Amino acid sequence: MNDLSFYRNAFLNHLEQEFTVEEPKNLYEPISYILNLGGKRLRPTLVLIAAEAFGVSYEKALDAALAIEVFHNFSLVHDDIMDDAPLRRGKATVHEKWDINTGILSGDAMLIKAYQLFENYEGEQFKELAKLFSRTAIEVCEGQQYDIDFETREDVTVEEYLKMIEYKTAVLVGAALEMGAIVANAPKKEQEQIYNYGKLIGIAFQLQDDYLDAFGDPETFGKRVGGDIIENKKTYLYLQALQKLSSSESEQLRHLYTIFPSDTQQKVEAVTHLFEESGAAAKTREEIVKYTEEAFRLLEEINIQKGQKVLLKELGESLLTRTI
Amino acid sequence: MNDLSFYRNAFLNHLEQEFTVEEPKNLYEPISYILNLGGKRLRPTLVLIAAEAFGVSYEKALDAALAIEVFHNFSLVHDDIMDDAPLRRGKATVHEKWDINTGILSGDAMLIKAYQLFENYEGEQFKELAKLFSRTAIEVCEGQQYDIDFETREDVTVEEYLKMIEYKTAVLVGAALEMGAIVANAPKKEQEQIYNYGKLIGIAFQLQDDYLDAFGDPETFGKRVGGDIIENKKTYLYLQALQKLSSSESEQLRHLYTIFPSDTQQKVEAVTHLFEESGAAAKTREEIVKYTEEAFRLLEEINIQKGQKVLLKELGESLLTRTI
Repeated sequence: MNDLSFYRNAFLNHLEQEFTVEEPKNLYEPISYILNLGGKRLRPTLVLIAAEAFGVSYEKALDAALAIEVFHNFSLVHDDIMDDAPLRRGKATVHEKWDINTGILSGDAMLIKAYQLFENYEGEQFKELAKLFSRTAIEVCEGQQYDIDFETREDVTVEEYLKMIEYKTAVLVGAALEMGAIVANAPKKEQEQIYNYGKLIGIAFQLQDDYLDAFGDPETFGKRVGGDIIENKKTYLYLQALQKLSSSESEQLRHLYTIFPSDTQQKVEAVTHLFEESGAAAKTREEIVKYTEEAFRLLEEINIQKGQKVLLKELGESLLTRTI
Repeated sequence: MNDLSFYRNAFLNHLEQEFTVEEPKNLYEPISYILNLGGKRLRPTLVLIAAEAFGVSYEKALDAALAIEVFHNFSLVHDDIMDDAPLRRGKATVHEKWDINTGILSGDAMLIKAYQLFENYEGEQFKELAKLFSRTAIEVCEGQQYDIDFETREDVTVEEYLKMIEYKTAVLVGAALEMGAIVANAPKKEQEQIYNYGKLIGIAFQLQDDYLDAFGDPETFGKRVGGDIIENKKTYLYLQALQKLSSSESEQLRHLYTIFPSDTQQKVEAVTHLFEESGAAAKTREEIVKYTEEAFRLLEEINIQKGQKVLLKELGESLLTRTI
């Protein structure tokens, strides 16, 4: 049986073959740049594994996998402009290396190129892929808008936050898996099951990302621990803590989320203390377990080969076993 | 027989029904705003007329027409950011009324929504529409990139300029007509003919726009006469003049295109004098006639009803009979 790195490499070969820099260079060089910045290639790998899980060669799914990765990178390019982010994977973002206009236009071209990659699939399969893709892409835009809206809202609920991360992050994980199932002509029911598996793993992953930002091991967590707290980002931990704290402590937390002290460590410690003391940290751990268990329960039910099930579970676990 | 305003109104009704503001409001309100700013609705009207020309009711083509209009407005929103334009149709641009991030994200959502509008067409028709749309959309992006590149290049050729306006403007006119033909299941040959008719009309229209900017009647030309000259925009007139002028006059023209004098009138007069004297103005008039005649010759050849041919010709003529 092939392992994860096999599929990842197969994808990387395909990426290299398909994306060459055409004219006009100022449009296509930034696209090549962002696509070759690296990353885990999680989403395209999921497409390939799902295709094989439902009984066709991963090779049939390479273009769908590439479409997902191109879309994901489109969203990174535009999000980085919106977030004014200078770095992506340790390198300059597209709008930093070129300019904002280049980031906008290259991103637009990537979104269109993603659709074009589905053209290698026949009539109905093309339509199913494009429909799922459009629905997912719109949800990702809506998720991004909710995320922006939440920055200036003081009354965000836990439910609203969950919907935001579902749209902004989780649906694309689900769509990646469902695309593999579509390419394999899997029955509609199984397409939905694998989509839901991916969505639940995606939510668990994002909740864990929120958790690790406050409680992760600086050695193994890819980003700066405490970053969300320093930037006053309303995460799941924060919203849970607001719900659980007494009104005076809740006020204290709200106040901490209005300041930008030069000594960030003291603030991070005060906030993480409130996260722990309120029970928000424990609640977040519980929810991660809940979403993960529900995901794996769903996976068990799906009618696919045992070997592929193991691989899909492994991929889910590899996402979730960063050091808590 | 229905006249142009009939189709325009049918389109406007459809637009009103289909685009309502959903949640999140900050994503969808700007979309509603730009779609309701007005405009001639030329492109969607072309889709409807082409569908009837090839024998199906315009009603079948309403979603394709809306897709074209939504895409056109997406490109306006993103282009206005890139051009730092404060006004669009006399009203604030999206990024002025909201902000750049809203313009980027709402534009992205519009591009995706355009694809979704094709979902109401069956299998192969859906694929044909989406393929034509993607190819056209990529060309529009490439045209925009060439346009940006030309701003800082001193060696742009007339041929390069023609390719730029073909991509940035003309292919979408051709695609609008071809979409009507696709919806009507017209034979491939006729789809191509009507596409080429639209493309040629589109090029003629853009050349005329360049011409009228310098020589138009301020009373009837919608924009400020001389605007391109004041902004040192390299138009067809400018590139033709550079080719035709003696090297000393050519240097003079190049120099005029580096300055931003407070008295713009003197500059505009000097430049238009060079455009006339060089023969560039006459050459541009000739080329407009050439593209227009070629377009109408193509239209004659297409196997469609005489009445619809008249309407398509009328639409082409109405585009081109702004006062020269």
